[in-house]
Amino acid sequence: MSLVTLIEYADAPPAVRLVYDDIMKTRGTDWINNFWKALANNPAELKRVWESVKQVMAPGALDPLVKEMVYVAVSVTNGCEYCTYSHTAGARKKGMSDAMFMELMAVVGLANETNRLANGFRIDVDKQFR
Amino acid sequence: MSLVTLIEYADAPPAVRLVYDDIMKTRGTDWINNFWKALANNPAELKRVWESVKQVMAPGALDPLVKEMVYVAVSVTNGCEYCTYSHTAGARKKGMSDAMFMELMAVVGLANETNRLANGFRIDVDKQFR
Amino acid sequence: MSLVTLIEYADAPPAVRLVYDDIMKTRGTDWINNFWKALANNPAELKRVWESVKQVMAPGALDPLVKEMVYVAVSVTNGCEYCTYSHTAGARKKGMSDAMFMELMAVVGLANETNRLANGFRIDVDKQFR
Amino acid sequence: MSLVTLIEYADAPPAVRLVYDDIMKTRGTDWINNFWKALANNPAELKRVWESVKQVMAPGALDPLVKEMVYVAVSVTNGCEYCTYSHTAGARKKGMSDAMFMELMAVVGLANETNRLANGFRIDVDKQFR
Amino acid sequence: MSLVTLIEYADAPPAVRLVYDDIMKTRGTDWINNFWKALANNPAELKRVWESVKQVMAPGALDPLVKEMVYVAVSVTNGCEYCTYSHTAGARKKGMSDAMFMELMAVVGLANETNRLANGFRIDVDKQFR
Amino acid sequence: MSLVTLIEYADAPPAVRLVYDDIMKTRGTDWINNFWKALANNPAELKRVWESVKQVMAPGALDPLVKEMVYVAVSVTNGCEYCTYSHTAGARKKGMSDAMFMELMAVVGLANETNRLANGFRIDVDKQFR
Repeated sequence: MSLVTLIEYADAPPAVRLVYDDIMKTRGTDWINNFWKALANNPAELKRVWESVKQVMAPGALDPLVKEMVYVAVSVTNGCEYCTYSHTAGARKKGMSDAMFMELMAVVGLANETNRLANGFRIDVDKQFR
Repeated sequence: MSLVTLIEYADAPPAVRLVYDDIMKTRGTDWINNFWKALANNPAELKRVWESVKQVMAPGALDPLVKEMVYVAVSVTNGCEYCTYSHTAGARKKGMSDAMFMELMAVVGLANETNRLANGFRIDVDKQFR
Repeated sequence: MSLVTLIEYADAPPAVRLVYDDIMKTRGTDWINNFWKALANNPAELKRVWESVKQVMAPGALDPLVKEMVYVAVSVTNGCEYCTYSHTAGARKKGMSDAMFMELMAVVGLANETNRLANGFRIDVDKQFR
Repeated sequence: MSLVTLIEYADAPPAVRLVYDDIMKTRGTDWINNFWKALANNPAELKRVWESVKQVMAPGALDPLVKEMVYVAVSVTNGCEYCTYSHTAGARKKGMSDAMFMELMAVVGLANETNRLANGFRIDVDKQFR
Repeated sequence: MSLVTLIEYADAPPAVRLVYDDIMKTRGTDWINNFWKALANNPAELKRVWESVKQVMAPGALDPLVKEMVYVAVSVTNGCEYCTYSHTAGARKKGMSDAMFMELMAVVGLANETNRLANGFRIDVDKQFR
Repeated sequence: MSLVTLIEYADAPPAVRLVYDDIMKTRGTDWINNFWKALANNPAELKRVWESVKQVMAPGALDPLVKEMVYVAVSVTNGCEYCTYSHTAGARKKGMSDAMFMELMAVVGLANETNRLANGFRIDVDKQFR
């Protein structure tokens, strides 16, 4: 059970509805996921985070599917259950196949392993990498 | 300073040299980075990790540049200095531009932020994501 | 389900009851939360951890509400479900309002973001900060 | 050495200078720390992150010193060297004494400990906390 | 609910069954736990991870119980629920008593605490340790 | 450079000297490492942490070398540089050979990998493990 009230559209003040409308329009959906309903307890924070997501996840030098898979990689590394479910769903919607998800997880797992091997041996960074 | 001796090619036993040769051949380089020189203190472990890297990072459903950027994303999330330098170098070699790196970091930063917002509010996973 | 038996007051040996009594007296409550019931499997460890909590969380240069909110911030960053629930409850009891909780989460989220931007760019610490 | 060029004021395009000017004005300083100089490689990202920091760290339901200490707590938990130096400096500027810093670290340490005890025993959340 | 289909023995292709058979034979069990059933969606990855586990967890300079307890320590530090349950079960099967588990958790908790104290004070490594 | 003054024995108040003396006596050394010199800025905190270390790391159901290796495993997982150096030195002093250290790191690396695989697939805990 969430630690804050989830603000439904019907109960939301105008400033929150504006953001909800923009989320649904941008994503082409007709519902708002719980993450935003929690943030809506602070409308200014809701707006700030949504605008950050909209700006950062827009197509640019990286395509949106790659960005979404990077989001999954970070969420899995941090062990965030909500984010793993929501961004895996997002990545699938943008075209991530089962095979791509399996490879993504393999890379995430391996990186977490070798990160600790490098940490553990306290390896100096090679001059070629600097 | 590394916590284990770095094993140079000249001092390496045959089992280690075989792996070093394969690393250089696979990567098209003429040098071995410190990570492998540390692992070489246990030749069986060196072989195991190298074969994992070779298998996981090979082209497949995801292209090698995407895999390398995912590796960077995980390394940055974990704060692994060595891995951030080495895999950023790897990603640049495979074509990551400055603009791509900047966007990659923006996604990594944002994901780390929203992971904690979801953690903090203890948000239930929407049924649509399950 | 917990990985160890939760030791109820009625079943607890005297050394454990002494700590339980002190917890209830210090906190002004008439029940013991599961965290302590798990630790009670090792009475010396129960005593050690409780005395640490009592000492560290006492009023001092920082007031107890600030300390409790810092505890929440760490628990959220680490993704500890139990601790997020228990210390949020503790902070609310000490006066944390909804608005304060929303701002606290905003800071925690943002700090997690900028931590990774600093990690990712491998930024040198400015001489003015050292 | 940073993985991206640090953009100095003299070399910065107008969009970056606008942000730099606002940072210095808001903070009452006459220099820009390296964090922003790295972000300036993507002016839109620089603007986004700065506006987030300005909004989140402004006085509100929590006072700026408390926010800054929470920032330190998160940075220390994540092991971010740059952020620990920069936000400790920020907190000291806002009034954090040596005694406050020592207590802050004690809470951060203890929270990291008990987070793992709760994780390790897989303790169910008490109904009183939900 | 898992994000990928769990592949049961009856539905598994020959390459997966070979690994499943080896897991059951090596462990002296007659069932396969969900972790492997998820990995089986990519038979090459299943084989790679299982062979890594078999090699790394085999008796060597460290005995298998110590290795299993180290596995628990890492899983608890990372907050991995599945891994904490599965490796605690593994450690108990290899002889970990209640008293050993309690002491293990005490060390894990304390290490997480002092890690942050060292991080927070940004303590230089003593020359005697290098 | 440390964020707090390191308190040398010669400059330490009696309450700190008592702890320093006990550290040196318990460990059979004639010097104090920087970790304690930083904590000494708050003598009550120094005493609390030292007594925790002394109690938790004492021989018990687990032998001191195993405890020290678990400490290394946690420190490496968290990426704590100071702790990795200091506890590796501690483990070597208690008998950890090169071969043991290499195997320890292999387990730590692998656990970090499979933790993320389990996180990523959101695998349900098998009923046999509960």
